Amino acid sequence: MALLMKAKEAADQVCSEIIAEVNELGRHGIQPHLATIIVEGDPASAYYAEAKRKIAERLGISFRLHAFQADVEEDRIIALIRELNEDVAVHGIMLELPLPQHISARRVEREIHPGKDIDGVTPHSKLATLTGEPGLYPATPQACIYLLKHYGFALEGKNVTLVGRGQTVGLPLFHLLQREQATVTVCHSRTPDIASHLSHADIAFLAVGRPNRITSDMVHERLIVVDAGINESEDGRITGDGAADLATHVAAVSPVPGGVGTLTTAILFQNLMKAIRMQQEEACP
Amino acid sequence: MALLMKAKEAADQVCSEIIAEVNELGRHGIQPHLATIIVEGDPASAYYAEAKRKIAERLGISFRLHAFQADVEEDRIIALIRELNEDVAVHGIMLELPLPQHISARRVEREIHPGKDIDGVTPHSKLATLTGEPGLYPATPQACIYLLKHYGFALEGKNVTLVGRGQTVGLPLFHLLQREQATVTVCHSRTPDIASHLSHADIAFLAVGRPNRITSDMVHERLIVVDAGINESEDGRITGDGAADLATHVAAVSPVPGGVGTLTTAILFQNLMKAIRMQQEEACP
Repeated sequence: MALLMKAKEAADQVCSEIIAEVNELGRHGIQPHLATIIVEGDPASAYYAEAKRKIAERLGISFRLHAFQADVEEDRIIALIRELNEDVAVHGIMLELPLPQHISARRVEREIHPGKDIDGVTPHSKLATLTGEPGLYPATPQACIYLLKHYGFALEGKNVTLVGRGQTVGLPLFHLLQREQATVTVCHSRTPDIASHLSHADIAFLAVGRPNRITSDMVHERLIVVDAGINESEDGRITGDGAADLATHVAAVSPVPGGVGTLTTAILFQNLMKAIRMQQEEACP
Repeated sequence: MALLMKAKEAADQVCSEIIAEVNELGRHGIQPHLATIIVEGDPASAYYAEAKRKIAERLGISFRLHAFQADVEEDRIIALIRELNEDVAVHGIMLELPLPQHISARRVEREIHPGKDIDGVTPHSKLATLTGEPGLYPATPQACIYLLKHYGFALEGKNVTLVGRGQTVGLPLFHLLQREQATVTVCHSRTPDIASHLSHADIAFLAVGRPNRITSDMVHERLIVVDAGINESEDGRITGDGAADLATHVAAVSPVPGGVGTLTTAILFQNLMKAIRMQQEEACP
């Protein structure tokens, strides 16, 4: 049976560090504040927003949910973002996805000030993730690497197979893995034989967004698998991209739920702390 | 003996297409114009700028070299770029590197208007290369793929080993290869065993910038090698990243000189044509 890389301990560790930082900021009169924007109509995103509120409360962080009705005009969301950008009491801004069809996430996201972009969605953040320059990197790719390291696994010089190359997880994770000095092979829907690549890999990251994409016949018993997939089945269960029986065929695997997703929210608040530091440095150069 | 993928024919083909386009633009009263900025002190960059002038003349493109003395202040270069950005008669701006120590290429480059950035060096162009959105992509990575395709080799579904991950060639090439649907493994200085990765590869791109980095014992006879390295030896000879005897151990290899580098300048002018089209679309939406 594989080592199950549960995220709770790592998430608790990140949260403890954040609480200490929030207390320290309080002594300097700073109350961290996250503004989340949601357009009604998607039950899952409402659920995630509510989960963030609960964690924020536990961490001593102010959280305000700005909810719009489903027929809101794009310009009204953009106007709110510009207001939040200017508001020095707001340290982080995030937009819950998906948005209704008539709104362009791309156009709305790029309005967020890069210094408050704790979800790493602005062009500035994407470019920083690419080049390694200072900035706010997306949370899920960071959570993948954090979880792996938490369990004592190193990346430098290792052969890594990354399955998936989406703009949200796969591609930014590729760039973070470069800076960890891993040798990365990026597999995707047009890769004829993913199993052959996995056979050369020490570590695999799954970021496809399709249940059962990686089955137990494709892996080997020395493989370490970090599963970043979050797929909802028809009966409401959450599964990863790896098949359920992967755990009996590899050396280590992160569970879904209870793995990368659990840590991602904590990393999001870690990004908020980083954003506050960046904003302070900017204020007093 | 391997197929030698010389670039002359491909470069001539690109140039013919450009000449036809320049003639067509002439009929609409448009004279394509490339402005190149150089800071004196580096003989190699002076040589490359002069080579561009000759090709521009052949293509019927106006070329103006803006030369600064080695002790020029950064602000003066930036002021010139802003002037060229505003000048509707200038369609492309490029900056010859290296610059003297006291000038930040990064700061200067980002001043270039993205619509005139035919070398693909601005943040906007880098991001477009990453996401696949419209924009001007760097010339050398494009030349690598163009040359391969010119010789009839496909990339979709192929295993590609990319050796090198620099910001100028390796990383942008990685992103272009994604959109060609190749499965790419990125090797670098911290990869313990590049040969083992090459043994699984159908196609290899070399973009390290070190002579003899890939030797004949690391390759196999079905491998297709595109060598983007340009290294100057002490006696002034130009060599690639592959050893001289690679040609007797692989299926196909691009020569250096006479390969990727030869095609890159042509692709640069192809980017100028693309920039003119983008500028026209912007002028008449």
